[in-house]
Amino acid sequence: MRLTELSERSGVSLATIKYYLREGLLTPGRRIGATTAEYDEGHLRRLRLVRALIQVGGVPVATAREILGHVDDDSLGRTIRLGAALWALPQGPEPDERDPAVVTARREVDRLLEMLGWETARELSTLSPVHRSLVVAVATLIRLGYPWDAELMAPYAELMHRAAVRDLDFVETHPSEAEKVETAVAAAVLFEPVLKALHRLAQEEESARRYGIE
Amino acid sequence: MRLTELSERSGVSLATIKYYLREGLLTPGRRIGATTAEYDEGHLRRLRLVRALIQVGGVPVATAREILGHVDDDSLGRTIRLGAALWALPQGPEPDERDPAVVTARREVDRLLEMLGWETARELSTLSPVHRSLVVAVATLIRLGYPWDAELMAPYAELMHRAAVRDLDFVETHPSEAEKVETAVAAAVLFEPVLKALHRLAQEEESARRYGIE
Repeated sequence: MRLTELSERSGVSLATIKYYLREGLLTPGRRIGATTAEYDEGHLRRLRLVRALIQVGGVPVATAREILGHVDDDSLGRTIRLGAALWALPQGPEPDERDPAVVTARREVDRLLEMLGWETARELSTLSPVHRSLVVAVATLIRLGYPWDAELMAPYAELMHRAAVRDLDFVETHPSEAEKVETAVAAAVLFEPVLKALHRLAQEEESARRYGIE
Repeated sequence: MRLTELSERSGVSLATIKYYLREGLLTPGRRIGATTAEYDEGHLRRLRLVRALIQVGGVPVATAREILGHVDDDSLGRTIRLGAALWALPQGPEPDERDPAVVTARREVDRLLEMLGWETARELSTLSPVHRSLVVAVATLIRLGYPWDAELMAPYAELMHRAAVRDLDFVETHPSEAEKVETAVAAAVLFEPVLKALHRLAQEEESARRYGIE
């Protein structure tokens, strides 16, 4: 397809596509004339992924380039390629290890992972920025007086695990390895706002069921 | 308790507490001397709520004041008081109704609410900013070529409903009506980063189980 069709099918403007080409986020099309180039389904897929990372994930261009480097590195396994993308997303503040709430939160998160049998999450706990984000979020709850511990977190973790199983089932419906990795990364970014909005809507609905809307 | 104890128990600095007092986010303590005032558990609870809204929810001071006005208005039912807070949180961009992806997303969200029997969410669909956020999030998926419809969304919605049931069960453990409302609002804000981090961690874990970590 030509550049105009790529723009139409992706909903991304010509100017933005040209910017992504200059920044190396998208590989050039196959030259078929002095001024025209041909793009394929791989370009369209890559363009969608770039869009998801930058527009929804809030990832800077340089970070997007880094993530795509990992996605394209087929010497790495799929978990690492997805993980590299998750780790490169904006993660919020670092935990302050001198804060007693952080110490408690870290202990409770460790206990949670043990209860759940999440072995990889346990192994990666000192490295993973996702693990650190969870510690920070739980520490905030504890600091504000909400007594959150592993027992209280476990059912939420089980629910999120069921969501992750569905995410990856969706990823598996794609035929090629390249598509699977690209979809896994895009889905990780794109499902978050959906889950957040569904959670708020569910709170509204459940509150109305319990207390009415008077 | 004195101001210093309020600061210690809440983990909020003296300077910040004084700022909140000046901005009317916290009612003044009971004067017990020329330069001292006495604060109670209600002040501590309120301070934690203000902190949650501003620091975690990303709510500006003026919006926090507006939310607290609704929280304190006991002529309103609990659903409305919680809803007013959810609606005042930052919601992201408005949907562009000329965009075909938005039209499709709105239809699929409507169909989802019908499938789920979420009657309040349906009634409020033209008013609720939470509903609009969901439409925007689903429209982004559709625009980027992910064929998301009501059938695909339903299991995620059920999971988020189960999380909301747990949120409100936790709220119910608080004795007084004022505490229930304040906790419901704080929980709505504070549980979001926990859910998001748990979802990312679950994706990492599930990916490792399926594909290994080579």
